[in-house]
Amino acid sequence: MKVKNVKAYGTKAADASLKAMDINRREVTAKDVEIDILYCGVCHSDLHFARNDWGFSVYPVVPGHEIVGKVVKVGEGVTKYKAGDVVAVGCLVDSCRSCNNCKNDLEQYCPEWVGTYGGHDKHLNLPTFGGYSESIVVDEHFVLKVPKNLDLAAIAPVLCAGITTWSPLRHWKVGKGSKVAVVGLGGLGHMAIKLADALGAHVTLFSRSPDKKQDAMDLGADAVVISTDEEQMKSIQNHFDLIIDTVPYAHDINPYVGTLNTNGTLVLVGYLGPLDPILHTVPMIMGRRSVAGSLIGGIAETQELLDFCGKHNIVSEIEVIKIQDINEAYARMLKSDVHYRFVIDMKSLKN
Amino acid sequence: MKVKNVKAYGTKAADASLKAMDINRREVTAKDVEIDILYCGVCHSDLHFARNDWGFSVYPVVPGHEIVGKVVKVGEGVTKYKAGDVVAVGCLVDSCRSCNNCKNDLEQYCPEWVGTYGGHDKHLNLPTFGGYSESIVVDEHFVLKVPKNLDLAAIAPVLCAGITTWSPLRHWKVGKGSKVAVVGLGGLGHMAIKLADALGAHVTLFSRSPDKKQDAMDLGADAVVISTDEEQMKSIQNHFDLIIDTVPYAHDINPYVGTLNTNGTLVLVGYLGPLDPILHTVPMIMGRRSVAGSLIGGIAETQELLDFCGKHNIVSEIEVIKIQDINEAYARMLKSDVHYRFVIDMKSLKN
Repeated sequence: MKVKNVKAYGTKAADASLKAMDINRREVTAKDVEIDILYCGVCHSDLHFARNDWGFSVYPVVPGHEIVGKVVKVGEGVTKYKAGDVVAVGCLVDSCRSCNNCKNDLEQYCPEWVGTYGGHDKHLNLPTFGGYSESIVVDEHFVLKVPKNLDLAAIAPVLCAGITTWSPLRHWKVGKGSKVAVVGLGGLGHMAIKLADALGAHVTLFSRSPDKKQDAMDLGADAVVISTDEEQMKSIQNHFDLIIDTVPYAHDINPYVGTLNTNGTLVLVGYLGPLDPILHTVPMIMGRRSVAGSLIGGIAETQELLDFCGKHNIVSEIEVIKIQDINEAYARMLKSDVHYRFVIDMKSLKN
Repeated sequence: MKVKNVKAYGTKAADASLKAMDINRREVTAKDVEIDILYCGVCHSDLHFARNDWGFSVYPVVPGHEIVGKVVKVGEGVTKYKAGDVVAVGCLVDSCRSCNNCKNDLEQYCPEWVGTYGGHDKHLNLPTFGGYSESIVVDEHFVLKVPKNLDLAAIAPVLCAGITTWSPLRHWKVGKGSKVAVVGLGGLGHMAIKLADALGAHVTLFSRSPDKKQDAMDLGADAVVISTDEEQMKSIQNHFDLIIDTVPYAHDINPYVGTLNTNGTLVLVGYLGPLDPILHTVPMIMGRRSVAGSLIGGIAETQELLDFCGKHNIVSEIEVIKIQDINEAYARMLKSDVHYRFVIDMKSLKN
């Protein structure tokens, strides 16, 4: 199979900084779309994967799965896209396409789904490389249309932070009058507030710090509850239909479970690991409450989200950086010093 | 308010055996039904409450919330029942009747629901006393009709063990072709198998002991999986739509979560307490799986279940005892030496 050498930014080891490197992309096959990358959002997963925090990274690692770009070439079997189209790629670039999950537009739960980076490119028999690069080649099924009215840098985080919160909002049927709470105000949390608000829900942010109140209200929240304040927590027992918990580290979810209404669900979208401290079953049984998990979203659902963002003029709050600033950006992310997402202007890779 | 002295069996202390005692019942008020008790099932909760295992028992305790009897008297405002009707009473004898849960036929989640025993009788300003007695007085809303074709002793456990498993089967929309698993083969587990089977589901029992296989199949299970056998557990990953976990003590639910299909739910109906060992979030996130709790069922739903049992000729598997044998029955229950529910023939109280 023919390959093409492209510029990228990545790392060859868990403890090394990211730097410029060359990678191979496949030449377009029949159903492929080649995309010149304009912008790529910076997700916490990028940092975890670059540093092998989950223990299954394969080097070299080129992160990035919030990709916006322009089509430059299509395979002869491609029907949905043509050169010049503005498109996006999220966390998935392939799946088996035949299992029940794939048939039900739930490619994210396909046992053979291929991540945009750190997956396995079966054409090249090589790891997949992400969006911190000048171009990418993706099967058209996994390529998304970007509404023309939206800022191309600011829409990038919708491809991961956005869909990760949109999918549970849709699955648990949030709409006008729903009572939704969001735990954590970062990349995911700020999108959860915007999207739940646009769906017509009454949105509450759970926060440990009162100084986030104005920011949350500006994003579309109707209320902020300080989770460390017992009186405030007591006042909203049996209240929420859905809580989207975006916190990416182990934390006590028990106080939140009691704030769910009968039949309510707390859905974890940020934390992968053991649920420490221990979960108590009494509040779950005494109100038919659920604790669930949810992973990004399917391709059709991601397109639905992009279209929804186009219609409601929703984008992320971002800080645009150059690729040369990525290591500093990671350091700032670890200190939660970003409102609310870094997006790399990929022109900088040509410098 | 007028009261009536009736014979009962109960205990005045956590460490005392149950013995004969007299209790007061209120005389029927406008909406009340007075019931001569024919049979009363013996639930694990009876034992926990008699022994103050949950720490909130108020003595004297008269247990029993699986009650079948005959109406002997009705208040002037009662429209649903008349003397001579065969009726049943389950775990609830009152609720606020005005909150959203009550309005939605979810009285079991009403913050003011009154248990058949250990609750608060607002007419008498006394604790409520359960079905280990010759008669009971209950508001007609909480009294249920018993189909005429069913064995009156064997239908009693449907009022708690049955509805506790029926409610999640209905809430999570189990029907023809659903894949349901049951953890634990006791009073609740054996009803879960019968009911899921009658709803048309493919039913699997998770068990630690191979010698329960034939019993489970006889009850209606299609398969038995030995939960300690790694190969068997591997072979059913991503499989079940609903798992009903009836185990009444702390146990590791992590191995079961992985056997849920995408969007599947494991519902805890037996265990009240901290979820030890710790729950892992990865299998929940990687398949949008949920862990939930569920408590008995509402009044309309309990009537639906009794009607369903009538239509499908379903009753519990029981061992009928005399009230004088109740302490021995508790001892046998603690050794799981019952297939699958003791039911007291309340005639014996007159001896």
